[in-house]
Amino acid sequence: MVRALRHSANAPPQVASGSMALTVVGSIAYDSVRTPFGHRERMLGGAATHFALAASFFDEVRAVGPVGDDFTDADLAILATRGTSTDDVERVAGGETFFWAGEYGWDLNSRDTLETRLGVFETFEPKLSDASRDADTVFLANIQPDIQQAVRDQCTNARFVAMDSMDLWIDIAKESLEKVISSVDCVILNDAELRQLTRKPNLVAAAREVLSWGPKAVVGKQGEYGAALFTKDGFFSLPAYPLENVIDPTGAGDTFAGGFVGYVAAHTDQEINHDLLVRAMAYGTALASFNVEEFGTERVARLAPREVLVRVAELERITRFTDVPLELRG
Amino acid sequence: MVRALRHSANAPPQVASGSMALTVVGSIAYDSVRTPFGHRERMLGGAATHFALAASFFDEVRAVGPVGDDFTDADLAILATRGTSTDDVERVAGGETFFWAGEYGWDLNSRDTLETRLGVFETFEPKLSDASRDADTVFLANIQPDIQQAVRDQCTNARFVAMDSMDLWIDIAKESLEKVISSVDCVILNDAELRQLTRKPNLVAAAREVLSWGPKAVVGKQGEYGAALFTKDGFFSLPAYPLENVIDPTGAGDTFAGGFVGYVAAHTDQEINHDLLVRAMAYGTALASFNVEEFGTERVARLAPREVLVRVAELERITRFTDVPLELRG
Repeated sequence: MVRALRHSANAPPQVASGSMALTVVGSIAYDSVRTPFGHRERMLGGAATHFALAASFFDEVRAVGPVGDDFTDADLAILATRGTSTDDVERVAGGETFFWAGEYGWDLNSRDTLETRLGVFETFEPKLSDASRDADTVFLANIQPDIQQAVRDQCTNARFVAMDSMDLWIDIAKESLEKVISSVDCVILNDAELRQLTRKPNLVAAAREVLSWGPKAVVGKQGEYGAALFTKDGFFSLPAYPLENVIDPTGAGDTFAGGFVGYVAAHTDQEINHDLLVRAMAYGTALASFNVEEFGTERVARLAPREVLVRVAELERITRFTDVPLELRG
Repeated sequence: MVRALRHSANAPPQVASGSMALTVVGSIAYDSVRTPFGHRERMLGGAATHFALAASFFDEVRAVGPVGDDFTDADLAILATRGTSTDDVERVAGGETFFWAGEYGWDLNSRDTLETRLGVFETFEPKLSDASRDADTVFLANIQPDIQQAVRDQCTNARFVAMDSMDLWIDIAKESLEKVISSVDCVILNDAELRQLTRKPNLVAAAREVLSWGPKAVVGKQGEYGAALFTKDGFFSLPAYPLENVIDPTGAGDTFAGGFVGYVAAHTDQEINHDLLVRAMAYGTALASFNVEEFGTERVARLAPREVLVRVAELERITRFTDVPLELRG
């Protein structure tokens, strides 16, 4: 396996040692989406897809999830962008690929689900190959928590396991969900979901509660407002990259997770501490900003590394301030 | 008039030259507020009050607004904290102080107005003393736009005029509002109000539209998420200071404005450029974070300068990241 190429300004690119790669388990889907700026029928989507497209900038990704007979080779090729392995994408004979249809409101901050057809996900039991099981980084995308647990338990070599979830599982499978959370290193949820999960209306209190269950890091995704990171060592907040043209937010959260977890996957030879996760936040944020500029996977599939780096540098610039000493009255 | 004391690390405090001071025109009110954490009856509030309590850390503030017979000397004394002049607070014989009653939802992100009684504000015509008119910095808090215009037109010496407004005026006095906006240097509105005002669902596009009307700066307040600054020279975004205990958001926006505009008022001997406004955002954000920790004016009225500086330094730390060069795959 080839390590994500990376180097500091003064050091040559490092060569990988030991087991590498990043395994993501989650939905590979067809989405029909309508926003105020257009619509798409049955475009490639799904949490694992969006995640893999972003994470593949950082490390070799292995996508695990089921598709139906209706899933095209062209879409499998998109999933394989930047070398993502689709060996563990299970084609279920006679099955239908997970389908979601939704419509967004005028400012893209609200959306209605028009239809969800689980298809092959109804009976999904993830079968991980040895290679997928050996990954040193794992992302459990939003699926039923017992399935997440089964995957987590198989990945005994992982140095960093992160997970997402959704309001549905908080409602109907809270106990299972809390169990998975206690077994991972990082939880990435929408801020409203963190509040719902902990029944704490305050985001800081909610995140601290989740940290007390076991994870070393909690990320609260805040949509167009950005994301906040909570670890035992501190807090970090990053706004979303400012965009004048946002076309389709579908998959933005999973793309963020792909950039964030991907960045960690490229650094598992280092201590995974607060400062490393802070930088990972910037890559997640940059990747997510490209995702929303076009429908579905369109923008990130053809994104160039240089574009990502430029946007990370821009994020650094537009969030930095340096106070000048000032004597206040009073 | 005494200049706000300030100095850089290597220079002695500067002495003021020419006309100084910061005039704020707006409501001085009694608020009855219920949040999930308690309630207060007829506590001191109002936009001018919250603004003055924050701005008084930076410069001599002159508060302009009407109160009724029911307004107590004790509350006038709170308004006068840190030397704010109440000479232009007009006591209307037989009048009732502006009254607002509201209730917040469980996560404090929604609120219902239960009652509004304009009282002395129904017939308010601001009478500015020479001292108030001569201020080099002016804040037009949220009042009817024609009144804002009348004040703005009187303040011919101002180097920096900022304003707030609200959805009501966008609905019923849009033309007047747009005229005031075109005559000020800085607009400070909630992000939803910027969208409503411009009919642009995208915040960046909305802010750019408002900049095209004349102001040199637009601030989009985003509640618990922070605030974004737009100037012709760039963009800056700052999250809210993370707090585990938020008790009452009433007045947070005006407190932010007080810190932001106050910071500018303390620097009107310098060029008011993007970098200066970026630092002003930090002071506004820090001040607002104290405001929400207790009901109404309780926390900011007894706030110490050192506490503000500590929180600004903390904001600097929790929003800063430094990228490490990385070669991406692809």
